[in-house]
Amino acid sequence: MSPIPGLSCVGILGGGVIGGGWAARFLLNGVDVRMYDPDPEAPRKVGEVLANARRATNKLVAGTLPAEGMLTFVATPEEAATGVDFVQESAPERMELKRDLLRRASAVAGRDVVFGSSTSGLLPTEMQRGMTYPERLVVGHPFNPVYLMPLVEICGGELTTDAAKDRAVEVYTALGMHPLRLSKEIDGFVADRLMEALWREALWLINDGIATAEEIDDAIRFGPGLRWSFMGTLLIYRIAGGEAGMRHFMAQFGPALQWPWSKLTDVPELTDELLDTLVAQSDEQAAGATVRELEVLRDDCLIAVIQGLRGQDYGAGQVLDRYERQLFDRLGGAAVAPSPADGPLRLRDMQVPRDWVDYNGHMNDSRYMQLSSETGDRFLRLIGMDADYLAGGHSFFTVESHVNYVAQARGGEHLYCTVQLMSSDEKRMRLFTSMHRAADDGLVATAEHMMLHVDTKVDKACPASDAILANLAAIAAHHDKLPVPPQSGRHIGQGR
Amino acid sequence: MSPIPGLSCVGILGGGVIGGGWAARFLLNGVDVRMYDPDPEAPRKVGEVLANARRATNKLVAGTLPAEGMLTFVATPEEAATGVDFVQESAPERMELKRDLLRRASAVAGRDVVFGSSTSGLLPTEMQRGMTYPERLVVGHPFNPVYLMPLVEICGGELTTDAAKDRAVEVYTALGMHPLRLSKEIDGFVADRLMEALWREALWLINDGIATAEEIDDAIRFGPGLRWSFMGTLLIYRIAGGEAGMRHFMAQFGPALQWPWSKLTDVPELTDELLDTLVAQSDEQAAGATVRELEVLRDDCLIAVIQGLRGQDYGAGQVLDRYERQLFDRLGGAAVAPSPADGPLRLRDMQVPRDWVDYNGHMNDSRYMQLSSETGDRFLRLIGMDADYLAGGHSFFTVESHVNYVAQARGGEHLYCTVQLMSSDEKRMRLFTSMHRAADDGLVATAEHMMLHVDTKVDKACPASDAILANLAAIAAHHDKLPVPPQSGRHIGQGR
Repeated sequence: MSPIPGLSCVGILGGGVIGGGWAARFLLNGVDVRMYDPDPEAPRKVGEVLANARRATNKLVAGTLPAEGMLTFVATPEEAATGVDFVQESAPERMELKRDLLRRASAVAGRDVVFGSSTSGLLPTEMQRGMTYPERLVVGHPFNPVYLMPLVEICGGELTTDAAKDRAVEVYTALGMHPLRLSKEIDGFVADRLMEALWREALWLINDGIATAEEIDDAIRFGPGLRWSFMGTLLIYRIAGGEAGMRHFMAQFGPALQWPWSKLTDVPELTDELLDTLVAQSDEQAAGATVRELEVLRDDCLIAVIQGLRGQDYGAGQVLDRYERQLFDRLGGAAVAPSPADGPLRLRDMQVPRDWVDYNGHMNDSRYMQLSSETGDRFLRLIGMDADYLAGGHSFFTVESHVNYVAQARGGEHLYCTVQLMSSDEKRMRLFTSMHRAADDGLVATAEHMMLHVDTKVDKACPASDAILANLAAIAAHHDKLPVPPQSGRHIGQGR
Repeated sequence: MSPIPGLSCVGILGGGVIGGGWAARFLLNGVDVRMYDPDPEAPRKVGEVLANARRATNKLVAGTLPAEGMLTFVATPEEAATGVDFVQESAPERMELKRDLLRRASAVAGRDVVFGSSTSGLLPTEMQRGMTYPERLVVGHPFNPVYLMPLVEICGGELTTDAAKDRAVEVYTALGMHPLRLSKEIDGFVADRLMEALWREALWLINDGIATAEEIDDAIRFGPGLRWSFMGTLLIYRIAGGEAGMRHFMAQFGPALQWPWSKLTDVPELTDELLDTLVAQSDEQAAGATVRELEVLRDDCLIAVIQGLRGQDYGAGQVLDRYERQLFDRLGGAAVAPSPADGPLRLRDMQVPRDWVDYNGHMNDSRYMQLSSETGDRFLRLIGMDADYLAGGHSFFTVESHVNYVAQARGGEHLYCTVQLMSSDEKRMRLFTSMHRAADDGLVATAEHMMLHVDTKVDKACPASDAILANLAAIAAHHDKLPVPPQSGRHIGQGR
């Protein structure tokens, strides 16, 4: 039983990368698939796409996916369209081939079965000729990999009904996609036209020896491509125009349309009418958001994308990773390491980021732990744990933590954090961190951590290096004389 | 003292959005800035950019930023260039203006001070005329917002030395950027040419009434823009070509260059020579990676980007969020809150995000607290604390937490989290959360929290509402019979 009402089984015509991707989208949403592809290699190829999709979708989605649908390979387009609730055509981009498949499949499909076509270039008006009930053909143009990319462009031909488009939107939305309804039929639709323009310019750059394939790609992914992952060119340019908006931007950059900034010189004339249309559409798109609001949204999205890519150690994420290591190195060298003779070591100063504040109007409880943990990392760095030490297969793991929340920290407030070494032996150390407001040294929270030195190759405790133990001993010589903070050694529920 | 060797103080000519962004990059890296801008509003404008940058950079970077550099506004370009180690010019795009600023500043700057220009359109060969030591002018073309975007295009004029370019690369790298050295000087450099081509096509689409500004942007950000945030068009097309690579892709899509897939029809001729160049550069870029490997990399990056955007509830992240709620709805009955009669309440299922993993290769210690805290929030929702309750001036504050780390959670691993109500009275409750691997129910960590019910208008403890107390009593009726977990009530350093 499919978990999507009215969508138990679909037919797919064509089992290449795109058809296989569609099959995966349907199957992973619990919908059965009847697949037609004359290529004897199709089951292997679809199986490979499905394996990729299974791994990726389970990784992407936090929710629980339904039980997978059943995949059946059939011998004819007629069989693929028999007893199904929807048909998706993904054959190679040849008009006669697509027309033939659609004609045969539509002759047997139930009258209310809508047909989606994955074509990226052919016009639906021409494709629907020869179909039984041609009004049900809708272009549903996806992007590779189909199982991850949200966009699907929806476009009808002359005969296509709105009801057919509505149904296609409903089906694709149920698969977790973002259907974009285009008002006009056009070669290449919208996204491919934009891609094609960029691609033609890229070919010019290679042709003229200006930049290599790798340089062109780097210019995209370390630059405008980062922004394009969440805001299109129009909104980005609106922000660039400042509070005065799109009209101001065009006053500044409109003339550049005549400049040799592109080899693609067949540009539209910037008439008053085009300008008015552009400005009105841009205002509508911004929906009342100020440039300042859009800037914050843009920045937060950029941060999220770059941090996401850091986890992959790729592209802009690799740049961030390298930068953070630079910052770490700069601390170790010139930066002033405080002396343990002065008492607890003040190892971290920071301003509470606004997004660390929760519905209670102050710093979320888990952020105190994060701050303490980051300060602990600084302590580890101080006693000699560096990248080489980690690479050598040794580290400290936290085995237990205790936090006392004393006062509320507000967004934007300047905090500092100190570390007191409570005890240590060759395998263990106990750290006590105190978080203070910088303004008046008021105590905000404390945390105590028991840490274990580990051989990470076998995940077993082992003695720390002589150098680290010597550093710990030097700190302990001072910290052993410090008073034990009242929050140390507490258990939950103990009276004060 | 600047933490970057050889870079204590820089001069910046022009304090608009770009100049302000550069100032922020330098200041936040501990470098002093001497800023020249004749606009009396410049200090306010730079201050606004700096405020944005401070917030964004602290959020982006996990490492510790150095103490901020000093920002000084000066009255002349000569003063901006006096006693500095580097100069960045970011004046409006007018050749005479830029030439004048560069001429005046270079007359007083030390001989080894390199000049970067932020120009996005003017040629360095023309800009360097009239400078004292013109060989030190380098284009360093950034992208907005300068404080977050990694890309900076490096390009020299006829007189520019390699040593000057090397220095510019060194400076920009120290700021956490990705310098891209272009081999040839060209109008618009590389990234802007690609953006301009896409922009010209977008204007055609608006001009011809094919798509609106919003539709164009949606076609980008839900589609190709997602991929462009980590891979450029060339590598994406290589993957589309399958194992046969770029030559196969061009055999399939080369003819489309002559098709009306773009209004920009002035395309390069696809000669054998261009084809060979393209194929060779694509091979070099792939550096031996198979299409299968590139597909996995592409998918992992897409997942990271989309999941990152989910945190912002924007763009493709919003689509994912909506999809996950659909999946939740389709679960039907199972989505209903679990019964306390079954034991501890399973309130949260999640997959460990990749960026929760730290240098030890498993989930960072502070994230266990975050997970427990988020699960605790669900418990609060369950017992009746909702937005109205908060708005009415009541909430629960955590006053103490204790975490035991039992096993390592890996990136991507599916975890679930349960809550046991240990004790409660009218003002206090003690929650015990357990984090488990879903695969084998193995315990990963536990946390215990003491929470206080607070009148948030006066920040004083007060009794919870009757409804909440009734819900707590109903849960306690079952949970009072559960065994006390061994990790409950522990203090740090206690034996096991």
